[in-house]
Amino acid sequence: MASTVSDFGLSCGILPGGARNAITDVPGIRVGHCTLRNGDTNTGVTAILPHGGNLFRKKVTAASHVINGFGKTIGLTQVQELGTIETPVLLTNTLSVGTCATALIRDAIRQNPDIGRSAGTVNPLVGECNDGPLNDIQALAISEEHVLAALADAHEGEVEQGNVGAGTGMTCFGFKGGIGSASRRIALGGGHHLGVLVLSNFGRPGDLVLPDGRRPDPGQPAGVERGSVMIVLATDVPLEHRQLERVARRAGAGIARLGSFWGHGSGDIAIAFSTGNLVDHDESRDLVPLLALNEARIDILFRAAAEATHEAVLNSMLSAGAFTGRAGKHRASLADWLRDQQR
Amino acid sequence: MASTVSDFGLSCGILPGGARNAITDVPGIRVGHCTLRNGDTNTGVTAILPHGGNLFRKKVTAASHVINGFGKTIGLTQVQELGTIETPVLLTNTLSVGTCATALIRDAIRQNPDIGRSAGTVNPLVGECNDGPLNDIQALAISEEHVLAALADAHEGEVEQGNVGAGTGMTCFGFKGGIGSASRRIALGGGHHLGVLVLSNFGRPGDLVLPDGRRPDPGQPAGVERGSVMIVLATDVPLEHRQLERVARRAGAGIARLGSFWGHGSGDIAIAFSTGNLVDHDESRDLVPLLALNEARIDILFRAAAEATHEAVLNSMLSAGAFTGRAGKHRASLADWLRDQQR
Amino acid sequence: MASTVSDFGLSCGILPGGARNAITDVPGIRVGHCTLRNGDTNTGVTAILPHGGNLFRKKVTAASHVINGFGKTIGLTQVQELGTIETPVLLTNTLSVGTCATALIRDAIRQNPDIGRSAGTVNPLVGECNDGPLNDIQALAISEEHVLAALADAHEGEVEQGNVGAGTGMTCFGFKGGIGSASRRIALGGGHHLGVLVLSNFGRPGDLVLPDGRRPDPGQPAGVERGSVMIVLATDVPLEHRQLERVARRAGAGIARLGSFWGHGSGDIAIAFSTGNLVDHDESRDLVPLLALNEARIDILFRAAAEATHEAVLNSMLSAGAFTGRAGKHRASLADWLRDQQR
Amino acid sequence: MASTVSDFGLSCGILPGGARNAITDVPGIRVGHCTLRNGDTNTGVTAILPHGGNLFRKKVTAASHVINGFGKTIGLTQVQELGTIETPVLLTNTLSVGTCATALIRDAIRQNPDIGRSAGTVNPLVGECNDGPLNDIQALAISEEHVLAALADAHEGEVEQGNVGAGTGMTCFGFKGGIGSASRRIALGGGHHLGVLVLSNFGRPGDLVLPDGRRPDPGQPAGVERGSVMIVLATDVPLEHRQLERVARRAGAGIARLGSFWGHGSGDIAIAFSTGNLVDHDESRDLVPLLALNEARIDILFRAAAEATHEAVLNSMLSAGAFTGRAGKHRASLADWLRDQQR
Repeated sequence: MASTVSDFGLSCGILPGGARNAITDVPGIRVGHCTLRNGDTNTGVTAILPHGGNLFRKKVTAASHVINGFGKTIGLTQVQELGTIETPVLLTNTLSVGTCATALIRDAIRQNPDIGRSAGTVNPLVGECNDGPLNDIQALAISEEHVLAALADAHEGEVEQGNVGAGTGMTCFGFKGGIGSASRRIALGGGHHLGVLVLSNFGRPGDLVLPDGRRPDPGQPAGVERGSVMIVLATDVPLEHRQLERVARRAGAGIARLGSFWGHGSGDIAIAFSTGNLVDHDESRDLVPLLALNEARIDILFRAAAEATHEAVLNSMLSAGAFTGRAGKHRASLADWLRDQQR
Repeated sequence: MASTVSDFGLSCGILPGGARNAITDVPGIRVGHCTLRNGDTNTGVTAILPHGGNLFRKKVTAASHVINGFGKTIGLTQVQELGTIETPVLLTNTLSVGTCATALIRDAIRQNPDIGRSAGTVNPLVGECNDGPLNDIQALAISEEHVLAALADAHEGEVEQGNVGAGTGMTCFGFKGGIGSASRRIALGGGHHLGVLVLSNFGRPGDLVLPDGRRPDPGQPAGVERGSVMIVLATDVPLEHRQLERVARRAGAGIARLGSFWGHGSGDIAIAFSTGNLVDHDESRDLVPLLALNEARIDILFRAAAEATHEAVLNSMLSAGAFTGRAGKHRASLADWLRDQQR
Repeated sequence: MASTVSDFGLSCGILPGGARNAITDVPGIRVGHCTLRNGDTNTGVTAILPHGGNLFRKKVTAASHVINGFGKTIGLTQVQELGTIETPVLLTNTLSVGTCATALIRDAIRQNPDIGRSAGTVNPLVGECNDGPLNDIQALAISEEHVLAALADAHEGEVEQGNVGAGTGMTCFGFKGGIGSASRRIALGGGHHLGVLVLSNFGRPGDLVLPDGRRPDPGQPAGVERGSVMIVLATDVPLEHRQLERVARRAGAGIARLGSFWGHGSGDIAIAFSTGNLVDHDESRDLVPLLALNEARIDILFRAAAEATHEAVLNSMLSAGAFTGRAGKHRASLADWLRDQQR
Repeated sequence: MASTVSDFGLSCGILPGGARNAITDVPGIRVGHCTLRNGDTNTGVTAILPHGGNLFRKKVTAASHVINGFGKTIGLTQVQELGTIETPVLLTNTLSVGTCATALIRDAIRQNPDIGRSAGTVNPLVGECNDGPLNDIQALAISEEHVLAALADAHEGEVEQGNVGAGTGMTCFGFKGGIGSASRRIALGGGHHLGVLVLSNFGRPGDLVLPDGRRPDPGQPAGVERGSVMIVLATDVPLEHRQLERVARRAGAGIARLGSFWGHGSGDIAIAFSTGNLVDHDESRDLVPLLALNEARIDILFRAAAEATHEAVLNSMLSAGAFTGRAGKHRASLADWLRDQQR
């Protein structure tokens, strides 16, 4: 079970969390990991599936927001134009985006033999952070099989956090980073959730500020930030693309509350999707009924996005044990630092 | 009755036009003008009302696209964020945007006394072109009364084109420009229209290419382009903001087909709205049902936007008689040039 | 002399402030106010002049960033296209943008009689917040003369903060808001500054978090946020448009650190300019030499933008005394709250 | 030698072309192809190298513009944020982007062993069109070796056009499309060029309009557009990112002049770079001198971008012989159609 901010008496905001305090509080969402730890190889793949069916046939409404664009994500152009996601969302290390995209394509063709024939092509969506310090990233260790393993591992329920999947070799504010998740209940239209999953790999040592004002010291030189953070936001509130883009933008507020200023060398990218309005690839009607949120009620989603992003990053660090990676490089655990403080 | 491309044996594309071949083919749309012609003052105001009711209370879904941003339009920031228009759309000369915005605000407060009190503020939307060559633009001749006159003149049915309203003193490819309109029938969901109204004031003399390949000579030195074009697109097809933004973008294709390359000094701005999904300012539900177009059917709207923009600009020039403005500056009529060619 | 965070033992970040801790630490910048306090009228105009010369003739390099676009600023389209500012930057109340724009136009014509004749038109830049709760905003009390008074008042040196100029009737997190400023020294290329001036009018009561973690209670119902914040960033570091846009974006981090999530109803807009590369309106060369920052060194500017925005908002509140406005509505002073805490 | 519009008595605009009428008229640019033709496999890779040195160490200034974002290009996010290109620009089929990106990464590491260690990561830039109708795109036939072959083939001078490299299996307005190039001389600052290379794969049969008004019939059913076009623009005029973005946008005007309305299913993406200001990865100065174009002179570049894009697409079709691809699907040659007309 992942350690979370509440285990350490911290809180990020005022909205109540979901039952699992994870992106999987949004019904249907599945998360899977493939973790590689072998000598200097410390990396992996994390897959987020918006639902359990054929994602190409039943696309989810989506949007993205680039907080800082020093990043190599593939797939954003089409997400912004068409407002949909049609594959799993993969997270991995920076130099493995190409391999992951190819694996997603092959998997989509397997499920939809008309792709590239009668049905157009498919838009793979893969985000990344640079785990170079702790992982031999030049080895390009991720293969298409690792992607299939992460997809096969995807499940509802508990989300494994910390040093798993794409988070295996990540660093955050000089501490060990990785995969983190959090959620908020949304008191709208009968009850909904907004959930966030992050791959945390950003922040200069010394810049982290806890919700109570403390500034943990990771025992690392401050140096130049060269990290990144991928933020995936999911909700079952029906939102149109423009509304999702507004929600995605608020992830940046969550990151800023941690003490980050969205550093130059960091690829800080948010992707948001809603399972509330599926888009049928084979839609036969000219005009399609859908639901959209009354815009005057959107603040609760903005607040939830900022709070859950803030908390998901902290959860990623609190779930990640101390780690020694490539060339003996060590990263302390924020959980250890907090436990030391409590003594 | 306005002269149009078909009167001269020209055509812009393949889709059929609406009954009036004007933006008012979209049900509910009203257009009004206030024209100032007095000595060196040759300018005016044109108002487009998306419907005949209270626009602040029942907003239309909207989007804009900046083709080239050397322009002073007010209101676009909020249109892009919220995806709605909540006042009439005004067109005028460049230096009168402020006065027109203030007049829209006062008119909105008159209709909605809660504005600036309990209801937030209102976002006036005013576009402009520089009629400086033919109008003493430094005189700032437009007053708030002129705006009210244009609003009072707004009516369904026939759209007065050419040297009227904001179009009074405009120049296009060295010929007389002004107000032009065109429409296309949209064979979707029971039958709809897309209509366009332009304020044409762009294009270097010599660059105009007619649909049949002819290049009319306005008898003006080529010089530097310092014009602009405002393009307002309306449809009753229900579209969400993202889809409207995609439609608005295609206005640029229509402008390019005239021989323009969207010159540096030109403020070329498209605003698109749909009357198909009104947004209730006082909406009480959390989730609102709406209709959106099946994206796979959107090409007909793209084609219509390009064709109708192309044709509306030509119609603006064909409806505009030869004109002598400030300091004796003369602009020939494209209609006269075409009639000369037919002899 | 304005109260600032350091008077209360608070600090926003780690970079040293400039000598005045104000936007005027950037050489040449002038700030002026015109304040209207008369019965229910509590509003005004604030002018920021990037330098003391003819701004139309010698434009400053500029960019803007829309954090949340529920706002009515005029002038952003051209700033983004051309990357320059060519008038003073005005701040005022939401419904007075039109009048302020007209006043800027007339002032620019007075200085440059070729505007609207041989020199093209001029792009007025006016930002706004809604002071409706404390000011009878429906009265549209700002006249062109008030703009001229703010321009005439503009001076280097000390910046008057709090309940002055456009800040007169503003509210921030339920406390009295207004005009605030801060600066940071930039240890690059011989020594430079980045300065920020804000018009603060945002934030839900109860959401404000101080740098030390305290959450001040303004004694106001939380309600719905309907505010805004305008952030003007200036630097003498030579930056190109793209770099300025990146710097402007970081203002959002400063706002988020205060506890805001950039609420739906808030027009949160940042405008950044550099005095390091003036653009000559009458430039005769084809290619123009300029200086740009080595991008690898830009983090200090990002950090400065976040820190100085954070601090400028707090300074606006700490400089603003308790205030009773329209219809007897009262706003407490954050400075009073802090003094009470110290007792 | 490629057939071009002038061989058929056509012309696209008024500016003079360069000596080779190709992107290689810009000094230093290299183009290489790897072509796969084997049974149902008809595809390839085209590489554009901005200069002959280490592109990661000496980056070129760059920008992109998404005309229509139904496309899977990788690398645009970072190009827009940092304003540079640091690898060759590759073009290929839609499903091979991942493999091409991985190959670029490996090639960059080979040249720069500090990538992923001390030097951050590298941003591969790969564009694509869907050659599915003529190529067995599901086979994912492109391997990293094919990329290396295209890179090894890159050379200055003549550009092979038509059915080569990435253009092998492409279709344009129902005719055979492929690789095309054109250039314009730029009479600025001592003499410069703007060159364009396109991968043409867009346009509905029947929509093509020649510069003289003729509408060639490819003998194909009109159907739904599912194409794309990649447009790479290069110049040795020193331009900053914002100016390059403005130039890139004008590629859309060239595409529109061909009769396209930038169809829904088309990924129409322009990438522009300038060799006039190289960005040194290892720059040691804080402030870097560079040259930028006097913005008032930029219209010649806009006109050149529209004209050369227009012409490059026609050249791609005129250089492409009739072709029979996957499953016996045939595409006529526009050159043959024109020769038939001349008889």
